[in-house]
Amino acid sequence: MRAVAVHEDEDRPRVIRIPKPEPAPGEVLVKILRVGIDGTDHHVIEGRHGEFPEDASTFVLGHEAVGVVADANGTEFAAGDVVVPTVRRPVGASNEYAERNELDMAPADAYVECGISGAQGFMAEYVTAPAEYLVPVPRSIAEYAFLVEPISNAEKAIDHAFASRSAFEWTPECATVLGNGPLGLLTLAVLERRFQRTYCVGRRDRPDPTIDVIERLGATYVDSRETAVSDLADEYEPMDLVYEATGYAKHAFETVDALAPNGVGALLGIPEAWTFDVDGGRLHRDLVMENKALIGSVNSSVPHFEAAIESLDSFPEWLPEALITGVYSPTSVEEAFDGDRGDVKVVVEFDCL
Amino acid sequence: MRAVAVHEDEDRPRVIRIPKPEPAPGEVLVKILRVGIDGTDHHVIEGRHGEFPEDASTFVLGHEAVGVVADANGTEFAAGDVVVPTVRRPVGASNEYAERNELDMAPADAYVECGISGAQGFMAEYVTAPAEYLVPVPRSIAEYAFLVEPISNAEKAIDHAFASRSAFEWTPECATVLGNGPLGLLTLAVLERRFQRTYCVGRRDRPDPTIDVIERLGATYVDSRETAVSDLADEYEPMDLVYEATGYAKHAFETVDALAPNGVGALLGIPEAWTFDVDGGRLHRDLVMENKALIGSVNSSVPHFEAAIESLDSFPEWLPEALITGVYSPTSVEEAFDGDRGDVKVVVEFDCL
Repeated sequence: MRAVAVHEDEDRPRVIRIPKPEPAPGEVLVKILRVGIDGTDHHVIEGRHGEFPEDASTFVLGHEAVGVVADANGTEFAAGDVVVPTVRRPVGASNEYAERNELDMAPADAYVECGISGAQGFMAEYVTAPAEYLVPVPRSIAEYAFLVEPISNAEKAIDHAFASRSAFEWTPECATVLGNGPLGLLTLAVLERRFQRTYCVGRRDRPDPTIDVIERLGATYVDSRETAVSDLADEYEPMDLVYEATGYAKHAFETVDALAPNGVGALLGIPEAWTFDVDGGRLHRDLVMENKALIGSVNSSVPHFEAAIESLDSFPEWLPEALITGVYSPTSVEEAFDGDRGDVKVVVEFDCL
Repeated sequence: MRAVAVHEDEDRPRVIRIPKPEPAPGEVLVKILRVGIDGTDHHVIEGRHGEFPEDASTFVLGHEAVGVVADANGTEFAAGDVVVPTVRRPVGASNEYAERNELDMAPADAYVECGISGAQGFMAEYVTAPAEYLVPVPRSIAEYAFLVEPISNAEKAIDHAFASRSAFEWTPECATVLGNGPLGLLTLAVLERRFQRTYCVGRRDRPDPTIDVIERLGATYVDSRETAVSDLADEYEPMDLVYEATGYAKHAFETVDALAPNGVGALLGIPEAWTFDVDGGRLHRDLVMENKALIGSVNSSVPHFEAAIESLDSFPEWLPEALITGVYSPTSVEEAFDGDRGDVKVVVEFDCL
């Protein structure tokens, strides 16, 4: 069967042929429909994030997938069920995090990530997965359900952000998303349902399809070249929630300035080392005197996937179409991974329902 | 009656004579027994924190108080009840934060703080307070109950720290307190009840009474001149909770290094502006990849005072005596505020039960 992989000696992915996998007991054989591409895939290809599976010279990419059950293999699934796989698997047979379905909270040595770090990904005609790592999806949203994985990351981060404010009565009204990439826009759509006023910070000129999405969602576009994140509170309003999806390290610190009293910043970007000046005294004081919080969040587990499916199902109909600007077949994988085409969200399509 | 106050033209407190207050409807007249002195009092005296009440040229100090009800004035209290006052009061008659007893979460323009900012303090023979801001204390711990206010700050911060970890199964085992001042030591005693292993970071040479308290509590003393906070994880173990009570701004950032995956740093210090270099990229990445959190926390409300009373009542008997190294009468106020005497915790005693 065909798979999209990067070879250890190469710097771009290509189609390879590998044997069709056989499901082990407890595993399901899934026929892949679509696999989304995101910034993490590009970082994996560039060698900036993640690592090849042990002893592998080719690494199958892809962690945002949707497929149909081809062989339920005695599990609770039935052939034809539409499913989305979660990304993390335990190192070894199992561990305490896997047992309570919280691999998203496992330390680095307790998990691998399919298509990212230490385990083969989903960008192939077929994959196998233990039944407990497959989340059923309504057929009506199968086409877009590769978006469930990125949305699930937002659901988890928002869940943790709200939990951090649960020791008092928190009545947030406004939220800002830093970053107008696909994760930023999907998060904005999730936050639209919970906040009265939303903002999304980017650095693009009009006309731009992401600005169109932001405004069609009812949010305000903020150009960070005109308004620094630190100035959001003064220029617009102090934010109850700031969701950082840029990976720009200074945003973690500027987030503190942007927050209202009792506000929380959810950090999701994964920057590299970068030393710079901060007024650490002022930031520290401000965190304390205004009861602010910063929450780092990575990955997601089944409950977040379930919440994401509910969100995706409730999104306005035009949204997935507006986000998915590139649908490529595996044979066009070079174009699919060409980041310079101005695409918002790109997906590799193996099959249709 | 006598009160201990600082005059706007002076840089040290002295005893003044002011009229005995009359309780307004809903207020209780409290005869003060003892009032603790902490770092905030020194910052107020130095003009580094807080501000005088409007139109006042003298500012009565003190926010860590215990007293007995002298005139219940028709409230639910009875004369002779031992009580501790909370510190914040609403600006104006009331506001939403006051109504739900969460003035600790109010923004800066919605509260004043008795003895700290905008309202006269408790270091006087008598004070009045609305009944809802008085918390009853068992007579058995009346002597030490001025410690309830500082402990309540720890209870709130710990409460918020645990809340921030409530969206997943968190089973913390070890905690570090940064700072071996009175708040640090009281916090350590609170954490001893919840954590299997505790550490306290200071910068003092042995023999030292605070190191004695740390070790008698069963905790490990860490000399920060030998082990930097950033090295705690390597030199000792990664910490599930770090509680910062130093006001040293770099500790807010070093806390991230000290944390275990899924750990939380509670920040309570109030540093001044100070710009320095940080590896913001690494810190940001580490917060995200290991699901870490930083929670700023200030002040406390009635539920935290109630938790503090329970904690104080459960502390080993030797602890308050070991902490309270100076008991001064109001006439010795100069010695009481002399920070160079090597005292751990100092209290001004107006009366005994």
